Amino acid sequence: MKFCSRKAKLEGALFEGDHVVLGPSVIHEGTLIGDKVILGYPIRRKILLLLKEGRGVDFEALDAVSEGVRVGKQCIIRSNTIVYEQTRIGDNVETGHMVLIREGSCVGSGTRVGSFAVLDGKVLIGKNVSIQTGVYLPHLTRVEDNVFLGPHVRVTNDKYPPSSKLRGVVIEEGAVIGAGAVLMAGVRIGKRAVVAAGAVVTKDVAPEIVVAGVPARPIGTRDEYEEKKRVWETTP
Amino acid sequence: MKFCSRKAKLEGALFEGDHVVLGPSVIHEGTLIGDKVILGYPIRRKILLLLKEGRGVDFEALDAVSEGVRVGKQCIIRSNTIVYEQTRIGDNVETGHMVLIREGSCVGSGTRVGSFAVLDGKVLIGKNVSIQTGVYLPHLTRVEDNVFLGPHVRVTNDKYPPSSKLRGVVIEEGAVIGAGAVLMAGVRIGKRAVVAAGAVVTKDVAPEIVVAGVPARPIGTRDEYEEKKRVWETTP
Amino acid sequence: MKFCSRKAKLEGALFEGDHVVLGPSVIHEGTLIGDKVILGYPIRRKILLLLKEGRGVDFEALDAVSEGVRVGKQCIIRSNTIVYEQTRIGDNVETGHMVLIREGSCVGSGTRVGSFAVLDGKVLIGKNVSIQTGVYLPHLTRVEDNVFLGPHVRVTNDKYPPSSKLRGVVIEEGAVIGAGAVLMAGVRIGKRAVVAAGAVVTKDVAPEIVVAGVPARPIGTRDEYEEKKRVWETTP
Repeated sequence: MKFCSRKAKLEGALFEGDHVVLGPSVIHEGTLIGDKVILGYPIRRKILLLLKEGRGVDFEALDAVSEGVRVGKQCIIRSNTIVYEQTRIGDNVETGHMVLIREGSCVGSGTRVGSFAVLDGKVLIGKNVSIQTGVYLPHLTRVEDNVFLGPHVRVTNDKYPPSSKLRGVVIEEGAVIGAGAVLMAGVRIGKRAVVAAGAVVTKDVAPEIVVAGVPARPIGTRDEYEEKKRVWETTP
Repeated sequence: MKFCSRKAKLEGALFEGDHVVLGPSVIHEGTLIGDKVILGYPIRRKILLLLKEGRGVDFEALDAVSEGVRVGKQCIIRSNTIVYEQTRIGDNVETGHMVLIREGSCVGSGTRVGSFAVLDGKVLIGKNVSIQTGVYLPHLTRVEDNVFLGPHVRVTNDKYPPSSKLRGVVIEEGAVIGAGAVLMAGVRIGKRAVVAAGAVVTKDVAPEIVVAGVPARPIGTRDEYEEKKRVWETTP
Repeated sequence: MKFCSRKAKLEGALFEGDHVVLGPSVIHEGTLIGDKVILGYPIRRKILLLLKEGRGVDFEALDAVSEGVRVGKQCIIRSNTIVYEQTRIGDNVETGHMVLIREGSCVGSGTRVGSFAVLDGKVLIGKNVSIQTGVYLPHLTRVEDNVFLGPHVRVTNDKYPPSSKLRGVVIEEGAVIGAGAVLMAGVRIGKRAVVAAGAVVTKDVAPEIVVAGVPARPIGTRDEYEEKKRVWETTP
């Protein structure tokens, strides 16, 4: 299905194939919208209301209620990605294929969101963040600039599930989270901290500290990590 | 591709965009079928047979061999979801985007199946179950009413892979499984038991017991869990 | 969107619905290409170049720069799968739905790649390999013949992320990796070794050895494993 809202401003956007753009979405110059991408999908409450009122739910109807999205310039939104309404994406952002970004999220300029990654609610992502394949970030997660999230990192927001009191994880500037690590609801990962692959983080991690294991415990500092990395990278 | 079987009964179903409905599928009133959803996809054996017999495998041919699905009333099946034939979905069920439900599965009324979740074979899900994003439930898994499965819970069915003797996990009524937990083949999670996020469950968990860790061990009771939760929720 | 390159050789390929075939792709006889499959998608560098040169990025433009893929005979490539250019797929290969295979990968004959699996770069897969649902294999991973990778196995390639020095994991012939196991960058899993479900492997595993736990440690031999399996399978 191809559908483009008459309210959308597409300026110099480039389209690969089919796509659905809903509501007063704004897409800036030089941005590529991949095949089968959906932008501006309405939040659940609005869908339920449309169904209740029997007003139809085709893209015309969804367009009428969508508040749209804002996508910056020179982005690449790859095929099958779905972005809900009320989302803001900066400049030079790239998504992989089959990414899901829910309502109210912000993605800073220069950030890359890997294939199959999910921003599952209002998620705030800084600039130049690297989100690898399959990362899961729930509602209320906040990720600062220059953070690296390895493949399949999973963040949670519910300490005693299922609860209505959710608490987002904060990942401070320059932190590195290894592949498959799990971060429990409400923890804060300090500036430039490192979480080893496979770790389960149940407590705050201080800035500059490296943690590993289940549950994660400190094993060193970021400076030591960078020194090991330097040796590793310069060894043939 | 848009394709709707002449054998399908769609009553008061509502369609968002394109969709494929195969076989004698029945979709009840007020149910929304999202863009690019495929309902009634044939099981592997039938596809192989069609290929072997050189009969073609376009949607006309698949329609001819599909037994269809049954979807209740007032459901929302979000975009890109694929439901295999012989599946029964109750009333007021919601799926997220890009969900895969394989043949023979049953999903009880009021249940929600999160985006990217996979019911990978004959999986029986009770009523009012909450299946969060990315949950994986293999063939023979049984989930009773009012269970909560956190994001990326992974269930297995093969004790000595790869084996032809599979044994499903049973999750009894009201149990809570935390994010990213892994449940080994054949374990039974008792009524109202709680499995902490990130746990790996290798043995049965008794009713009302809370387990955590790798491998998971008892750390308390459900009543204690509910009391901690109550304190947590009432603390500002 | 339906698009088929004039440069493609499709011989006796069979198509389910819509599909996109780019570049001089070759698809051999009796192979089923599912609905919404994309074959021959160009590598990132080429997309960036097209955008920079302002040459458009619709499927015509992508077709012009794609080197295509090679898919053998009697394969099944299920719906929504995306295969990048420069990829070679043998005969009798099956993919699930929503699989992503990146550029330069090779998939040997008789191999099955489960739904939502990702081959995320140049990944070499042998013959008759079983890759279950949601498996993640990054750039430089090498998997030999007859290996079994359980659901959601996650392999990494970056010892000190984020680094430009990546080191692939090697999984030797006949090895078995249990569900949800994590393999750290650069480890070698020996011939017929077994990694238990949920294990985190930080060191090489010798041939014929069974490891389990976090971090993974030896717990037995493959022969013992096969004996336990035999008893298990023959017990009613």
